[in-house]
Amino acid sequence: MDTSNYQQLTRTFQRLYRFSHLSSIAGWDMMTMMPAAGSAARGEALAEISVLKHQILTDKKVAQWLDAAAQEDLNDVEQANLREMTRHYQQAAVLPEALVEAKSLAGSRCEHAWRSQRPANDWEGFSANLKEVVKLSREEAKLRAAAKGCTPYDALLDLYEPDMTAAKLDVLFADLKSWLPDLLNQVVAKQSQRQLIAPVGPFPVEKQRELGLTAMRTLGFDFDAGRLDISAHPFCGGVPEDVRITTRYDENELLSALFGVVHETGHARYEQNLPRTWLGQPVAEARSMAIHESQSLFFEMQLGRSKAFLQRLLPAVIDRFGVQPAFSDENFIAWNQQVKPGLIRVDADEVSYPAHVILRYEIERALINGEIDVDDIPALWDEKMQHWLGLSTVGNYRDGCMQDIHWTDGGFGYFPSYTLGAMYAAQLFHAARTALPNLDAAIAEGDFSALFEWLRQNIWQHGSRFTTAKLIESATGEALNSRYFRQHLTARYL
Amino acid sequence: MDTSNYQQLTRTFQRLYRFSHLSSIAGWDMMTMMPAAGSAARGEALAEISVLKHQILTDKKVAQWLDAAAQEDLNDVEQANLREMTRHYQQAAVLPEALVEAKSLAGSRCEHAWRSQRPANDWEGFSANLKEVVKLSREEAKLRAAAKGCTPYDALLDLYEPDMTAAKLDVLFADLKSWLPDLLNQVVAKQSQRQLIAPVGPFPVEKQRELGLTAMRTLGFDFDAGRLDISAHPFCGGVPEDVRITTRYDENELLSALFGVVHETGHARYEQNLPRTWLGQPVAEARSMAIHESQSLFFEMQLGRSKAFLQRLLPAVIDRFGVQPAFSDENFIAWNQQVKPGLIRVDADEVSYPAHVILRYEIERALINGEIDVDDIPALWDEKMQHWLGLSTVGNYRDGCMQDIHWTDGGFGYFPSYTLGAMYAAQLFHAARTALPNLDAAIAEGDFSALFEWLRQNIWQHGSRFTTAKLIESATGEALNSRYFRQHLTARYL
Repeated sequence: MDTSNYQQLTRTFQRLYRFSHLSSIAGWDMMTMMPAAGSAARGEALAEISVLKHQILTDKKVAQWLDAAAQEDLNDVEQANLREMTRHYQQAAVLPEALVEAKSLAGSRCEHAWRSQRPANDWEGFSANLKEVVKLSREEAKLRAAAKGCTPYDALLDLYEPDMTAAKLDVLFADLKSWLPDLLNQVVAKQSQRQLIAPVGPFPVEKQRELGLTAMRTLGFDFDAGRLDISAHPFCGGVPEDVRITTRYDENELLSALFGVVHETGHARYEQNLPRTWLGQPVAEARSMAIHESQSLFFEMQLGRSKAFLQRLLPAVIDRFGVQPAFSDENFIAWNQQVKPGLIRVDADEVSYPAHVILRYEIERALINGEIDVDDIPALWDEKMQHWLGLSTVGNYRDGCMQDIHWTDGGFGYFPSYTLGAMYAAQLFHAARTALPNLDAAIAEGDFSALFEWLRQNIWQHGSRFTTAKLIESATGEALNSRYFRQHLTARYL
Repeated sequence: MDTSNYQQLTRTFQRLYRFSHLSSIAGWDMMTMMPAAGSAARGEALAEISVLKHQILTDKKVAQWLDAAAQEDLNDVEQANLREMTRHYQQAAVLPEALVEAKSLAGSRCEHAWRSQRPANDWEGFSANLKEVVKLSREEAKLRAAAKGCTPYDALLDLYEPDMTAAKLDVLFADLKSWLPDLLNQVVAKQSQRQLIAPVGPFPVEKQRELGLTAMRTLGFDFDAGRLDISAHPFCGGVPEDVRITTRYDENELLSALFGVVHETGHARYEQNLPRTWLGQPVAEARSMAIHESQSLFFEMQLGRSKAFLQRLLPAVIDRFGVQPAFSDENFIAWNQQVKPGLIRVDADEVSYPAHVILRYEIERALINGEIDVDDIPALWDEKMQHWLGLSTVGNYRDGCMQDIHWTDGGFGYFPSYTLGAMYAAQLFHAARTALPNLDAAIAEGDFSALFEWLRQNIWQHGSRFTTAKLIESATGEALNSRYFRQHLTARYL
């Protein structure tokens, strides 16, 4: 029997999926289990399988099959799969292997040096490495842009959120900028009126872990197909059949580990509920980084920090850590809904978070499009941080443009996903509430089944079958806009 | 610059090593961390990389490089590496992929059904599956035998202990048979005179784990390059740069987890001390399964259950579990040196263990060479068990020939490694004691440094550089024989 070109492709992507399985698990192990001396051998093994995957994906035969399969009789899902396969192929084939390797090396060097340069506030040392990363990322962006016929930065955006462009982002972000600074000021002014009581630790790790597991169960995490562990930086990894989420514990701080778990559980449920029958094929993958982030923020911000959810959570907290003044209903909710503009993005609340993202977006776009250079970053950073949050970062590189590692490995184009995710999450939650009239009452009673079923029907089960635009329009009846994010922030904080 | 054929080979084996790294870590994860629902995807991923490795290893170019490299100017280590590469290639190339796959499927089926057939004592059901496994293993053995010019069973033996033959084993085992049954009877008679006090639990898992970690530290395990975890069946896995050992805990039983840890630590130190400069090449691999087993038994039996070691261990036991009558010096030592012939191999003491191994060896050899059939196994098993240990297994398949899974996946030829390992261990320990006049005093003081340095010099650092025969002759001054094993058993138990 003849094998169709499409079938050849599905076999090839099935193989790639299986190799990725091993990379994912070994990557998870590296972050959670691996002793220090295992690092070099692990790095080599992961690089070797990356090279293998790149070779398999960019093989000439794949291009031929893709061309030929486009003429074959395919159903809707198969056509969507072919579209996603083509996207993967093109993204990989456009880059010469030498550039991939040079970028990976420059990224590792920059990230490794950053670990000591950040505490030393050593911008001079850091920027020397970053320049090399930017140079290579610009090369990458140019090649991708030439292949797609778009601007360099748009070509990178497309890696994380297909079809997103700077032009579209500018509209969305201009809208945000028109109302968010005012809203932030009002919230800060309002919250400054009240006195909050801080929870008093220590909160033993084992009990924090139990609380996290309880929250995961409540939120429908499937423990038969996943785990919770510890890593320095929380993440959601593993494979859809076996999702590994992590958090980190601070015995003096109760809520950061817990909301880390809630956030990662959102990512995890998306992965655990991707379409099983297509698993192994690109069409079954999560739609985009922004949609992924929308699920984690749906869980953490829309649901997790809602009054109703916090009220349900409180007895479990008191059960483990006893009664204390901070654990009154009112104080507990207010404590978890604090808005405090600060220098560090990962510590930011949902009202000030977009400022961090838009700041980076504007800088990285100009950087990749060649309008500014690495040396211009600190001044721009300070100017934007002053403008948005009224905070100075003059001379404070460590809490300014050196605060995290997103740029060190050339991940330009990713930042917008965070705020797109927040906007998607608000729009989705609004649509779910409209579709489910008893939703608020159900949440107050701890019954999230209808809400999760709605997510399954509208987001999870579709994988990458539709474009993001179509997915969101089907789920919410309209294109992405900031209205629901604004409504959400206004309702919760003003 | 031209690349030599030998260099082409080292690159190929380096790649294979890196892929094996990922299989090993994913395999360890499967046994220790993976939730149940991850099983199918993991199995597929591991199978996919096995196929890939087989394809890379049996590529025509590898055969050409091997032939051509034999004419190149290679130093001693390179020549040994080429010899081991050739061995790997030949072992892989001789089997058609269809047979490898059929064997793997039949093995999985047999093992899977065994899990419920064993408790049900269902020999009829089990033997139907086993017949398929034996049929395929015979095919495999015939192909290997034709390629090597030896008997079918010898061809399988060679997979686990290169150059070992049934003829050599018969001599070694005939010798054992001439004195071991008598010695066993004498020990049993002697031990029946005394009354031992059993340790009284419960022994909390966390404290057992601490005791195991203490033993590992004492025994030189490098925690910067390895871990201790829990699995249903203890094993030593991971990679030389990151060795993962496991044990299992029973709160009512103190010593089985602990001596499991000591045993696996022997395997682990061998792996952790394989020659670093050659790592990634076949010459750096452990010499054989029997030599591997010799290291674990060196740690567990020669050292771990010696009076001197047990005396050093006892304070750490009392420290964690308190004083009790079983923890007198005399009782603790005697308890750990009990000899109790029984039906189950994995529970056997070192005096009765060889009976289990020789019994299986004789049956599996006849089975593979086509002298008996699967239906003959139970009667032969019973006859030999009666003869050696005076125990009946008539109708008791579950504690007889269905007691473990060695045969279900076609691992014929492995069993002799256990007793060869015990003999190697005794011979090595004797040689170390001869070379290190103060050894016993040093052990009594808890100073094992000279002993481990001796192992490093004589076994660990050589990897697969020499044949087993040469390795053992260099280390001990003579060929493998059972004299030192007999001396050891006599000295310890009579």
